[in-house]
Amino acid sequence: MYINETKLKVRYVETDKMGIVHHSNYYAWFEVGRGEFVSNSGMSYRALEDRGLMMPLVESHCKYYEGAKYEDEVTIRTWVQELSGVKVVFNYEVIRDSDKKLLAKGDTVQTFVGNEFKIVNIKKKYPDVWEKLESLC
Amino acid sequence: MYINETKLKVRYVETDKMGIVHHSNYYAWFEVGRGEFVSNSGMSYRALEDRGLMMPLVESHCKYYEGAKYEDEVTIRTWVQELSGVKVVFNYEVIRDSDKKLLAKGDTVQTFVGNEFKIVNIKKKYPDVWEKLESLC
Amino acid sequence: MYINETKLKVRYVETDKMGIVHHSNYYAWFEVGRGEFVSNSGMSYRALEDRGLMMPLVESHCKYYEGAKYEDEVTIRTWVQELSGVKVVFNYEVIRDSDKKLLAKGDTVQTFVGNEFKIVNIKKKYPDVWEKLESLC
Amino acid sequence: MYINETKLKVRYVETDKMGIVHHSNYYAWFEVGRGEFVSNSGMSYRALEDRGLMMPLVESHCKYYEGAKYEDEVTIRTWVQELSGVKVVFNYEVIRDSDKKLLAKGDTVQTFVGNEFKIVNIKKKYPDVWEKLESLC
Repeated sequence: MYINETKLKVRYVETDKMGIVHHSNYYAWFEVGRGEFVSNSGMSYRALEDRGLMMPLVESHCKYYEGAKYEDEVTIRTWVQELSGVKVVFNYEVIRDSDKKLLAKGDTVQTFVGNEFKIVNIKKKYPDVWEKLESLC
Repeated sequence: MYINETKLKVRYVETDKMGIVHHSNYYAWFEVGRGEFVSNSGMSYRALEDRGLMMPLVESHCKYYEGAKYEDEVTIRTWVQELSGVKVVFNYEVIRDSDKKLLAKGDTVQTFVGNEFKIVNIKKKYPDVWEKLESLC
Repeated sequence: MYINETKLKVRYVETDKMGIVHHSNYYAWFEVGRGEFVSNSGMSYRALEDRGLMMPLVESHCKYYEGAKYEDEVTIRTWVQELSGVKVVFNYEVIRDSDKKLLAKGDTVQTFVGNEFKIVNIKKKYPDVWEKLESLC
Repeated sequence: MYINETKLKVRYVETDKMGIVHHSNYYAWFEVGRGEFVSNSGMSYRALEDRGLMMPLVESHCKYYEGAKYEDEVTIRTWVQELSGVKVVFNYEVIRDSDKKLLAKGDTVQTFVGNEFKIVNIKKKYPDVWEKLESLC
């Protein structure tokens, strides 16, 4: 199973008045991890969208253990927990680099859709994408 | 059980290149609903923070049924699913006003914390807050 | 000259670790004001985009006098400073409702573009839009 | 004169329904550049805030030449245009790495403030900060 690791540094704009990263930004980080995961399979998520394949979320979930702070350096670990022709479930961990503490973990469910958000089966419609994603599971 | 209803209009900045609202923004909307819920109990979340009480999230979750679009008018329904002295679970629904379609639903878990993010029991430390929240469950 | 007034309440997610609204969010507020300005002319910015007309920014500018805080209620005043067939300059003021203090003011320059971001002259291509916008100047 | 160069990759969440990066995000990028500029002087902006020194914006400005797209790799060039004891003016350029095209340029004005957002003169109150910043102009 392939696990992608992406490094980020907390941006000021991501903090809120509690002095920690606003919880909604972890989902943006997961998305960065997901994009890098796809990139490292030799595809590009942007290129997939140009071919008409989109992956909107149908579910997202996150548990927060400790708030990341401005300028913290973190690693986003991303892997595929489950894959079928019509959907994929990604898992994520956010780890603070300085002490390897797990700050948050989460998961998202994406469906594969084409024009007008109609579900497509990538095994049939995008077999090359299916093969690459499956090889990483 | 009290259910708060807050109306919002989708902002351009909330959309992404798929042409729909980016999934992370639903969590910001839930937060607006939560703030209004607290306001309508006669308290203000800002005033609570000024008294040293914060409510950071320890978990968040959302299911997406259909993407909201720019200028859509939506209603955020917010209620308390579970309340104890140290945490509260809120539930949310996002409904599109034009056709009453449920676009998303979610839940968040908050703990009550004081200085340095130490958990506090609001039954003991903030009994007025406890009473007001409990009266809405 | 028509001046649109839109009311907003500061969201938690808009604050940063200084405890005030992050400066980038004023641009999102200007955009809300701009959208309402267009709506109140009897058009809808979303409908204009559906007809192929977009208004990307080519310049933005803001002066900040005092930071808005969480739950502040503010009014965004929006008007057209300058209009030609190919561009429009909007002006904005952000006023705190409680004491009528001017918190920020700014301006944005938009060009009118069609497919592939090519500039179009709305006097010729969208004369109804031109007429409505001009009537508000 | 020191010019900091920071590399970023466009995030999906930063795009809007026009398919390009929402204009407000350039200000978040400028902020990343500014933070890296300060870091590379041997200080940390986070550490400065911990010492009671904040640098809120009093003005921001940006010109947009071409929209950055999802997954574009860009370089943020940051330098100090003007420095006094009470304020600093930063300049920025956003350059697309693939073809070295200038996508945007901007500037921000920051004042130095302490508790309760009162202006402080860093020459007197934080001479070490003054020296380091001045050495980079």
